[in-house]
This record gives sequence, structure tokens and C-alpha cells, in this order.
Amino acid sequence: MMIDDDVETGNLGPYQERPRIFPDMRSKPYNPLIFRVFKRINVRVLFILLLLGFGGIFYIGARTSPIIVFVFTVCIFSFLLSIYLTKWVLSKDEGPPEMVQISDAIRDGAEGFFRTQYSTISKMALLLALVILCIYLFRSTTPQQESSGLGRSTSAYITVAAFLLGALCSGVAGYVGMWVSVRANVRVSSAARRSAREALQIAVRAGGFSALVVVGMAVIGVAILYATFYVWLGVDSPGSMKVTDLPLLLVGYGFGASFVALFAQLGGGIYTKAADVGADLVGKVEQGIPEDDPRNPAVIADLVGDNVGDCAARGADLFESIAAEIISAMILGGTMAKRCKIEDPSGFILFPLVVHSFDLIISSVGILSIKSTRDSSVKSPMEDPMAILQKGYSITIFLAVLTFVASTYWMLYTEQAPSAWVHFALCGLVGITTAYIFVWITQYYTDYKHGPVRALALASSTGHGTNIIAGVSLGLEATALPVLVISVSIVSAFWLGNTSGLVDEAGNPTGGLFGTAVATMGMLSTAAYVLTMDMFGPIADNAGGIVEMSQQPESVREITDVLDAVGNTTKATTKGFAIGSAALASFLLFSAYMDEVATFAREPFTQVDIAIPEVFVGGLLGSMLIFLFSAWACSAVGRTAQEVVKEVRRQFIERPGIMDYKEKPDYGRCVAIVASASLREMIKPGVLAIISPIVVGVVFRILGHYTGHPLLGAKVVAAMLMFATVSGILMALFLNTAGGAWDNAKKYIETGAYGGKGSDCHKAAITGDTVGDPFKDTAGPSLHVLIKMLATITLVMAPVFL
Amino acid sequence: MMIDDDVETGNLGPYQERPRIFPDMRSKPYNPLIFRVFKRINVRVLFILLLLGFGGIFYIGARTSPIIVFVFTVCIFSFLLSIYLTKWVLSKDEGPPEMVQISDAIRDGAEGFFRTQYSTISKMALLLALVILCIYLFRSTTPQQESSGLGRSTSAYITVAAFLLGALCSGVAGYVGMWVSVRANVRVSSAARRSAREALQIAVRAGGFSALVVVGMAVIGVAILYATFYVWLGVDSPGSMKVTDLPLLLVGYGFGASFVALFAQLGGGIYTKAADVGADLVGKVEQGIPEDDPRNPAVIADLVGDNVGDCAARGADLFESIAAEIISAMILGGTMAKRCKIEDPSGFILFPLVVHSFDLIISSVGILSIKSTRDSSVKSPMEDPMAILQKGYSITIFLAVLTFVASTYWMLYTEQAPSAWVHFALCGLVGITTAYIFVWITQYYTDYKHGPVRALALASSTGHGTNIIAGVSLGLEATALPVLVISVSIVSAFWLGNTSGLVDEAGNPTGGLFGTAVATMGMLSTAAYVLTMDMFGPIADNAGGIVEMSQQPESVREITDVLDAVGNTTKATTKGFAIGSAALASFLLFSAYMDEVATFAREPFTQVDIAIPEVFVGGLLGSMLIFLFSAWACSAVGRTAQEVVKEVRRQFIERPGIMDYKEKPDYGRCVAIVASASLREMIKPGVLAIISPIVVGVVFRILGHYTGHPLLGAKVVAAMLMFATVSGILMALFLNTAGGAWDNAKKYIETGAYGGKGSDCHKAAITGDTVGDPFKDTAGPSLHVLIKMLATITLVMAPVFL
Repeated sequence: MMIDDDVETGNLGPYQERPRIFPDMRSKPYNPLIFRVFKRINVRVLFILLLLGFGGIFYIGARTSPIIVFVFTVCIFSFLLSIYLTKWVLSKDEGPPEMVQISDAIRDGAEGFFRTQYSTISKMALLLALVILCIYLFRSTTPQQESSGLGRSTSAYITVAAFLLGALCSGVAGYVGMWVSVRANVRVSSAARRSAREALQIAVRAGGFSALVVVGMAVIGVAILYATFYVWLGVDSPGSMKVTDLPLLLVGYGFGASFVALFAQLGGGIYTKAADVGADLVGKVEQGIPEDDPRNPAVIADLVGDNVGDCAARGADLFESIAAEIISAMILGGTMAKRCKIEDPSGFILFPLVVHSFDLIISSVGILSIKSTRDSSVKSPMEDPMAILQKGYSITIFLAVLTFVASTYWMLYTEQAPSAWVHFALCGLVGITTAYIFVWITQYYTDYKHGPVRALALASSTGHGTNIIAGVSLGLEATALPVLVISVSIVSAFWLGNTSGLVDEAGNPTGGLFGTAVATMGMLSTAAYVLTMDMFGPIADNAGGIVEMSQQPESVREITDVLDAVGNTTKATTKGFAIGSAALASFLLFSAYMDEVATFAREPFTQVDIAIPEVFVGGLLGSMLIFLFSAWACSAVGRTAQEVVKEVRRQFIERPGIMDYKEKPDYGRCVAIVASASLREMIKPGVLAIISPIVVGVVFRILGHYTGHPLLGAKVVAAMLMFATVSGILMALFLNTAGGAWDNAKKYIETGAYGGKGSDCHKAAITGDTVGDPFKDTAGPSLHVLIKMLATITLVMAPVFL
Repeated sequence: MMIDDDVETGNLGPYQERPRIFPDMRSKPYNPLIFRVFKRINVRVLFILLLLGFGGIFYIGARTSPIIVFVFTVCIFSFLLSIYLTKWVLSKDEGPPEMVQISDAIRDGAEGFFRTQYSTISKMALLLALVILCIYLFRSTTPQQESSGLGRSTSAYITVAAFLLGALCSGVAGYVGMWVSVRANVRVSSAARRSAREALQIAVRAGGFSALVVVGMAVIGVAILYATFYVWLGVDSPGSMKVTDLPLLLVGYGFGASFVALFAQLGGGIYTKAADVGADLVGKVEQGIPEDDPRNPAVIADLVGDNVGDCAARGADLFESIAAEIISAMILGGTMAKRCKIEDPSGFILFPLVVHSFDLIISSVGILSIKSTRDSSVKSPMEDPMAILQKGYSITIFLAVLTFVASTYWMLYTEQAPSAWVHFALCGLVGITTAYIFVWITQYYTDYKHGPVRALALASSTGHGTNIIAGVSLGLEATALPVLVISVSIVSAFWLGNTSGLVDEAGNPTGGLFGTAVATMGMLSTAAYVLTMDMFGPIADNAGGIVEMSQQPESVREITDVLDAVGNTTKATTKGFAIGSAALASFLLFSAYMDEVATFAREPFTQVDIAIPEVFVGGLLGSMLIFLFSAWACSAVGRTAQEVVKEVRRQFIERPGIMDYKEKPDYGRCVAIVASASLREMIKPGVLAIISPIVVGVVFRILGHYTGHPLLGAKVVAAMLMFATVSGILMALFLNTAGGAWDNAKKYIETGAYGGKGSDCHKAAITGDTVGDPFKDTAGPSLHVLIKMLATITLVMAPVFL
């Protein structure tokens, strides 16, 4: 694939003669309140304030543990690096004015939706915070808690503060992801006119910026909370609480993060896929115009969707994944250290923070390893962008293994069990291997180089019906291998942990669950790089849209097409990764929940016996919740897409000049329709997810009270959580894989197989792709978040179940 | 809707001029070996043999319990009634020769497939019997068992004999269903030329015949086994086994039944839907010829499929449902009677047999209540056949309530808890109500009189993609209400049972599980009538096909169309019914499994704690099994349908005269392709279902042995079973409802909505219908059977898990 000469010379060919109809639809540029406040402050004052803030943080960190200081330092350096990356990206040119116009329209749409969406979400978060406050103010506390300074009001304020901070950070993570992507997209398009490699580099660095910010914020957020509570509550001083109990106070942070992520993913997912499906059904199928054609009235809405759905939502999702995983591992580390009576438990508790600090360092190396071509004036055949990204990933994984082993030795070496750190290092390797196999399996099922997608393409040749049947079967079948891998890694990590030599007072091995936690950390030990690859996808997709809309020559479109295809694969693999870690993290949070209930109930709670009918019913309800949630998420997309289809059809009928570029489509109406519909539609599934466990817990608590079953509510909720986790993992794997496979089967046919573009086979494949859209980008990713939100909500709401 | 005059006068209009191309494809008529043996025996000898047989049965029955004599009597009367019904059906005329020709071709295809399919199944059953024999001969037994005459070899032979008898009866049940349907179909078509009411009556009575035989055989089979073992083992005489332990020996019967039913359903389901999808995709979508048009080379395969897939398989399925439910309820009744030390436990043990004896009586009344019109010469507007069937159902339900309450008083009254029978009668009412609500919910989601299907039809107007998204969402959403209903009925029946006043020695209430069992019986207390309605569907469908193929006038087709539509609804409701009872029966069998394990392991086994990682992994694997099984079932249909599509396309190309009726399509090739493909494809999912629990149990048993966890294998299998049950219920509900809704959305559009037949909207709806076919008729019903087969296989294989 060669880059055409005319791109380099600026001779942009005959397409320039075609009329341009891009509207100047800029509205007032939007700056969030906090940015405006910052802008008004004098730079020097701001600098001093920042220095003071960092000074305070470091002071608290130093009073807590040197490890915290290390974590702070790494996070701040990664923030500095991310500022460098964003400056680098923003220094690139934005291309010709028609590109800028389109990009501005996308940016306005995305920021407008973000503003409305997050104002709705923040209202709900405040309401929920109030509910949590009330619950905690009226719950009963143990005498030990009271004496250790953790009275009702203290723990209420701590939980609510953590919840709100988690929600805020999750929102910022989403905003950052979107902020950079709406700025990088046009720069990638512009660079694609010059060199594929440069376009790739800009997209990767833009993705890297948000990945570093998201991961760094998750780490520093937990670290600040931990250090603050440590100093405030005077932990480990005589008479006050033990450090091993501290991580439980952080749960609110995870809940806040997953709460916001759930609504961000739902709203964004509905937005992006409703616009996409609606645009495709009329544009591609009925009118036969290409994707992202400027004549399609829904095209701007579609491009906006990529930013709000994929960038903003995925930022919040990964932020929440990492926060939940860090907190659950800290809780388990603390519990284990307490049981084993380890002298200095801080290593076990702070281990996840260290792992993710190294994650930031090694991922930065990986991101920076993707360089521009040496000399852009020399024409060289384009390299496969996937190979370049994979090379960076290999470097990151290699470094991850080294740093992981080093950090297990640094943090987990204890005299009580001298070989324990080796066992935990092996657990980490199990996790890293699991992640690697997951990526491989996802590629096998969704990449058209392999058998399954080719069989799916073949099934399209016999019609729409067989295409759908084959895709559904493929997705259902693709759940098997990941489940086997997850099963093996849970059992082996548990076994490795159990044989680590760490024993409780009675001599029973206790390291099993922590081993599973370490495996989860291993899995997420390259999270920042993976998130970079993920963010790369929608940026490349958007760049392609801008290139198409501004009618650049074929050669430019070819470059963005290749980048877009790579982005599809990396997006699919990240989902495999996210669901694998969600499975493990949820299992860990489940153990934390049982500990929490035992603490509140002041009696042991170690078993969830599904032979009890009520508990079985809880499981049934949990699995049902997953099905119902998926139903509502998918049908929301379907309904909104129908509205878009009607609007686009109406515009084509009422403005016949659109097809000849003589009349301007009303892009704004489609944006408005999708935005308001997705805000409306995200409420129902989201509220269902939050309300169900609480309602079930309270109903069975009351039932248990009258039938003389203590703890019935807590048990039923536990079963609900576990069954929902299992069903959620399977359903998400099914939805993500089927969606990805349909998408790539269509792409495979577009390469010319089975009749190529425009054939009946291609039409059948487009149907599959349309069906796959809400599967893989709305319901599937929302389920990742849902699983973890259920785990954190039950943990925070535990007091109302007993 | 009026029946046209010309039908009555015999003036069959212009269609007679059209060329007839029905092949004379009769091969040698097939009679199973056993029929041929019977035919050779002199009638008198046969009569004497029969009398002797019945005499022997009654003798054994009389030595066991008068209740058994009652059960025998009812069963024999119902067999006599079924003979009357079949004579009545066969006395009807077969219509003109062209109908007979088609009917013969269908019969040959169905019987040919049945022969090959069941010879494969019987080989596998024999192999499995050998495996069971080996396992039981080498397992360890308790001293109590040895002393009570239940040594290794005795229990091995008993289990194997029960397994083989169950398998045989299940096979016969399937054969009977198919036998009558291939004979009734042409008689219904012929009657449709005269009167709708008569056609309805023939279809109902033919369905009633097989329903009575299937239910009667399930009841009498269990009763004979029970009585034989009772007399043989000298139960209740000093030193030998207690009657309360007897029902556990019957488990093999349930396993045999579900084993055969699984393969029957898989093979038949793949056959019927591959032929249907293949025929529709080329015939309806590509060539635009109507359904069941004689020019379609796959049409005979499609009509054969209705018989082997719907009639034979559903007969085996319902047989297995009833057998499994009777046996699990008998086990629980025995266990409870033992715990409560009830003096005469036979009432509690034999209660399910009595309930189903009454089922036979009241369903007969219901079936016979559907009469022919008073005077067929009087022209009257056609009544709604659904209303007629519903009236019969209402009569049956009303009688069911009366007889159920009476039998609880008769069987379950005990001095120890004088009000217990009232509680159990209420449990039965809970079950009957649950069944009724289930039927109502299924109708709500699948009938086009209601909102959901109409919304689905509306979604078809915006294309194939939105149709599929809407259908999938509808199916996923439709799991919610049934799960809520099942949950409420499990909890309330358990509570009613627990408060019945029956207490064990320590004073703990013990009636809870038995209460759930009674609710299940209540649910199935009208099983024979429900099965009649279900069998009615494929017969009407086939009759419609024969009418279309023999090119009868529009008015005749109208009658069979209406009957066919009613059949679709009744089929959908039976599935809701089957899955509801499967959920309850599986939960009961799960308790039986735990008892069984405890007995073998000689230690209490009352808890399945999903907080143990291995147990959690078992659950994960169980749910995964459901997804993988569904995937393989669906993809088998997809692959086979693709073969059919290619063959049909080839015939249309190579024989261009087919479309003008000038050349004869080669029906036989399609029949052969579908038959051999479905035999091949049924093996993989079937073997998966049987092997998985055994492999998982053995692997974790070994793992448990090396890591020092006793009973780990049994616990992991228990979790696997429970998670598979829950996921299976949800998946089956999803698949059945989505499939039914798609089917009826298409039918709704065919009534003229959204553009009617031939519009783009209709095409999109046909895609949905095609996708729904394997969902609702292959994967969905196979899952009902799978759930119960998993429960029985774990019960029979329990010895290898410890």
C-alpha cells in the first residue's frame, strides 16, 4: 500500500470540484466550570497552589508509608508524561478547514452530550450519596468499631466521601478520554494525508495520554484516600483501628467509580450504537451510500457516538476496573495479613498500588516505543499497524513479568513464609498468561484470519437468517474456552496461594484467596498499555470518518481504513481482557462482602449454601437480572435506532437535493434525537441494576425475620451476586464475541470474499453487523461494569441486608 | 371466516387443471420388529398373553399397596380409551389419492429417520448401560445396604434394568407420538375440506391418543418398577430395606428416559428446523413461492421434520418430564416420611402416581369435551379453535383442582399433623396457578394480540437488523416474569410445606421440600391435556402442508392455516409449561442427589458452598455447558440448513422445469441430506451433555484427593448442576420466547400489517422467523431435557464422584 503522490504535493484531485456542504455548526465552545475557574486564576497562584497540594499529599504519604511516597512519585511523573504527550499531540496540525469544521461539529456534539449526561449522572450520584449517608447513620456498629474511632457518623462520612470521590474521578476519567479523542481525531486525519506511521503515532499517543491519566488517577485516588484515612484515624496507634481493616473503608470509592461508569457506558453505548445502526440501515442498506458519507444526516451523530461511547465510557470503565481490583486485593491482603499475624502487613496491603505504579512505568515505555518513521520524505511500504502495536505490547509484557517478580519480592517477602513471594510471583504469571491467552482466544474468534469468522462469512452467503444463526452460535460457543481458562487460573492461583506457606494461628493455609487476587493483578499489570490500544480504536475510527466526510482521496482513506480495522481488533481484545479481570475481581469482592457481613452480624458468615430454596431463588434472580439488563440495553439501542431511521428517511424524502450534494442535511436533529433518547433510555437498565440487589436483600431480610432465618437477606444477596457474576461473564463474552465476529465477517466480505461489496452476501453480513453493534458496544461492555457494580453495591449496602 | 360452498359441493375449482407432480415415492412400509412379532402371533394367544401379563401386574400390585392397584386400573382404562381414540381417528377417510401419496411420502420419511435415529440411540444406550453396570459393580456399599439385600450386584442390576426400561419406554413414547401424527395429518387435511370443526376434532383426538399413552406409560412404568422391586426385595419385612428408601432405586428409569429424550429432541429438532430453514430461505425468500409449495424440493423433508421433531421428540420429552417429576417427588416423599417417622409412608411416596392417575382421567374428560359440530350440513361461522381448546383446558383445570384437593386428603392425611394435607393442597394450588400464569405470560410475549409481538413487527419495518435486535431483546426480557413467578412459587410452596406441622425427631419442620414437590405435581396435574394441545400443533401444521401440496382450494387452506396458527400458540405455551416444571423438578432432583451422596459418603452432605473457589468454578462450568450446548445445537441447524439451501438451489438450476411444474423435484435427496446430517450433528452436543458432568466430577474428585478436600468432586458437580439449571431455564425461556415471537410477528405482518406479504418488512420478519426456528424448536426444547438429564445423570453417577 503506497501513499499517493498527490497527497504529498497537495494536489488533492478531482474531489475538490465536488460541492462542499459541511455546515458551520459550531456553537459556543464549552469549558467545564472547573476549567473556567482554573483559567481565571493567575498562573503563579495556580502553581503555588499545586505545589502546596502536592506537598500536603507527600507529607501525608510520608507519615503513612514510604511505599505510598513511591506510588505518589510514580503517579505524578506519569501525569507529567501525559502532559507531554498531550502537548505533542496538540502541536500537530489540524489539516484543512473542512476537516476542522467537521471536527468542531463532532467536538460540540460530544461535549454537549457529555455535559447533559454527566449532569444527570451527578444528580443521581448525589441522591445515592444521601441514601448511603442515611443508611450508615442509622446502622448499628460494634463496640470495637466505636472504640477505634469508627463510630456511626465517622464511617458514614468516610463511605460517602469515598463514594463521591470515586464518582468524581470516574467522571473525570471519562471526560479526559473524550477530551483528547475529539482533539486527536482531526490531527490523525490530517497526518494520514502525509504518512500512515505518523497517523498511527498520534492516535497511540493520544490514547496513551488518557490511559496514563485514567490508571494514574485510579492509583493516586486510592493512595490518597488510604493515606488520609491512615493519618486521620491514627491507624495502628494503640486503641484505634488496625491497618489491616483500613482497606474496607475504601469500598465506597469503588462503588462510586462503578456507579458512574455504569451510566457512562449505558448512555454512551446507546448513543453510539443507535446512531451507527440508524445511519447504516438507511445510508448503507437502503440508499447504498458509503459509511460516513457527508450526505447521511446521521453521520455526525455517529462520529460523536464514537467519542462518547467508546472513549468516554471506556475510560470510566477501565478506571473502575482498576479501582475495584486494587481495593478488593487490598482488602484480601489485609484480611490475610491479619489472620497470619504478619508483623508488617503494609506490604500485603499496598502491593496492588505498587503493581500499578510499575504498570504506569512499563506502559509508558511501551507507548513511547511506537515511533514515527525515521524520515517521512522517504517512501516506504506501510508496515502492518497491528504488528507495531503488538511489538509494543510484547515489550510491555516482558517488562511486566520482570517488574512483577521484583515487586513480589519487595512487598511480599516475609520471614514467616520465606518462599511465599515465589508462589505469589507465580500467581502473577498465571494472571499475565491468562490475559495473554484471553487476547489470543478473542482474536481467534473475531479476526477474519481464522476459521470461525470465515465460517460466519460463508454462512452469510446463504442469507440473512443463516448469518444470524451462525453468529449467535459462534458467540455462544466462544464462551467455552475463556471459561475454561478462567477456571484453570482461579483454581491454580488459589492452590499456589494456599501452598505458599502462610498459615493462620490454627495452622490452616490461608493464602489461597490472596493468590487469586495476585493473579488478577497480574492480569491487569499492563492495563495502561491495553487501555492505550483500546482508546486508539475510536480515535482511528473518527479520523476515518473525518477523512471520508471531507472527501479526501482514496489513498488517505485507505490508511485510515487500515488503522480502523486494527482498532476493531484491539477493541475486541480489550473487552476480553476487561471481562476476564471482572470475573476475578468480582470473585474477590464477593469474599470481601462475606467478611463485611460477618463483621456487621458479629457471627461467622463463611458459607452460601445454594441448597436452601431461598438462596437458590436468589441465584435465579441474579441470573435473570443479567438477562433483563441485557434486554433493556439492546432494546434501547433498537428503539432509538428506529427513531434515527425515521428521521433520516424523512430528511431524504423532504430534501431530495441531499443526494446530489445540493441540499445540506440537518445533522443537528439527528444529534439531538440520539442524545435525548439515550439519556432517557439509560435510566431504566441503570436503575434496575442498582435497585434489584437492594430490593431482593431487604425483601428476604424481612422474610427471614418472619420465618426465623437469620442472615437470610445477606445469603440471598450473596447467591444473587455469584449467579449474576457467572451469567454476566458468559453473557458478556457471548455478546462481545458475536458482535466482533459479525463486524469482521462483514469486513472480510468487503475484501472481496463471497461476492464482495454490494452482493447479497454482503447485505446479509451488514445485517449481522447491525445486530452485533448493540451486543458488543452497549450491552456487553455495560455488563462488565454491572458485574463489578453489583459486587461493590452489595458491599456498601451490606448493613441493610441484616 | 366462512367455509366456501364449493368445498361442500365437491366443486374444487380451477386448481384441478394444474399439473400434478407428486411422486409415487412409497418404499416398503416399515413395521418395527416388535409389531411384526405381535402380528404373527395368533390373536387369541395374544389376548391370553395380555391377560396373563395384566394379571401378573395386578397380583404384584395387590401385594404392594391398594393404591398401586388403583393406579394400574386407571392406566389400563386410559390405554383402552386411547385405543378407542386411535380407532376413531383411523376410521376417518384419507381424502383423494394425491393427499394419500403425499402423506405416504411423509410417513416413509419419518419412519425411515426414526428407525435410523433410534438404532443409533439404542446402541449408545446399551453402551451407557454397560458403563453404569461396571460403575455399580465396583462401587463401595454400606453395611446396611448389604444387609438389606441391596448388595453391589443387586443394585447394579436394578439400576441398569431401570435405565433400560426408561430408555425403552421413552423410545416407545416417541414412536407413538409419531405413529399417530403421520396417520392423522392426512385425515385432518381431508376433513378440512368438509368442516373446520371436524378437522380440529381429529387433530385433538390424535393428539389425545398419544398424550394418554405417553402419560399412562410414564405412570405405569414407574408403578410396575416400584411394585416389582417392592415384592422382589421383600421391602418392609424385618431386616430388609425400608419402603422409604425404595424410590431412590427408580432413578435409573428417569435417567434412561431423559437420555433417550435428549437425543430424540436433538436429532428431531435439528432435522425439522434444518429442513424448514433450508426450504424457506430458497423457496420463500429467493424464489418467492409459498410455504409447502410442491415445487420446493425440500418440502417433504420439512413435513417429515414436523413429525420427527415435534411429535416424536415432544412425546419423549413430556414422558421424561413426567417420569423425572414422579420419581423425584417419590424420593422426597420417602425421605420426609422417614424423617418424620410417619407410620404408613406409602401415601407420601405414592402420591405422585395418584395425581397423575387423576390427570389421565380429567384430561380424558377435557379431550372428549371437544366435540364435532352438531350438524355438519348446517353452515355456521367457524368458531375460534383456540377458544374451543381453551374451554377444554378450563374444564380440565377445574377438575384438576377438585381431584388434587381430594387426593391430598386421601393420601397425605396423617394423625401426626392433621392439617398437613390442607397445606399440601395449597401447594398444589400454587403449582396449578403457576402453570396457568406461565401459559398466560408465554401468550403475552408470543401472541400477536399483545404489545411485544406488535412492537417486534414494527421493528421489522426498519429492516432485518432492527428486527433481530428487537427479537433478541424481547426474548431476553421475557425471562423476567417467569423467573419471578417460579421464585414466588418455590418460596411459597416451601413455606407452606414447612408450616404443615410435619416435624422430625428434633422438632424441626421438614415438609418444605415436599411442599415444593407437591407444587410441581400441581403444575403437571393437567399434563395429558397440555400434551394433547401440544401434539395438536404439528398435526395441524402437517395437514396444512398436505393441503398446500395437493393444491386444494383457498378455503381449505384457510381452515388449516387457522388450525396451524393455534398450534403455534399451544406449542409455545407447552414449552413454557415444560420449562417451569423442569426448573422445579431439577431443584427436587438436586436434593435427592445430596441425599444420595450423603448415603454413599457416609457423612452428612447438606451444603453446597459457592464461596469455595473450586465450587464456584463448577458453577462457571455448569453455566458454560448451557451456552456451549445451545451453540452447538443452533450451529448444527445452521450448517445442515446451508447444505439444504445448496441442494435446493442446485435442483432449481439443474432442473429449470420445476418452477413450471414440468419437472419433478427430487424430494428424496433433501430427505436423505437432512436425515444423515441431523444424525451426525446430534452426537456432538448430546455427548457433551453426558460427558461434562462426569469429567468435571472425576477431575475435581482427583484434585480434592490430592489437596485434601473430601467430597470436592461431589460438591463441584452439585454447583455445576445448580448453575446449569438456572442458566438453562433462562436460556430456554429466551430461546423459546424469541423464536415464538418472531414466528408470530411474521404471521401478524402476513395479516396485512406494515405492508403485508411480500413487503420489505415481511422479508425482515422472515429472517427473524428463520433465526427463531433453531431457537425455539432445537436448542430451546433440548435444554428442557438437558436440565433434567443433568440432574438424573449426576444422581446415577454419584458413586464416581466420591
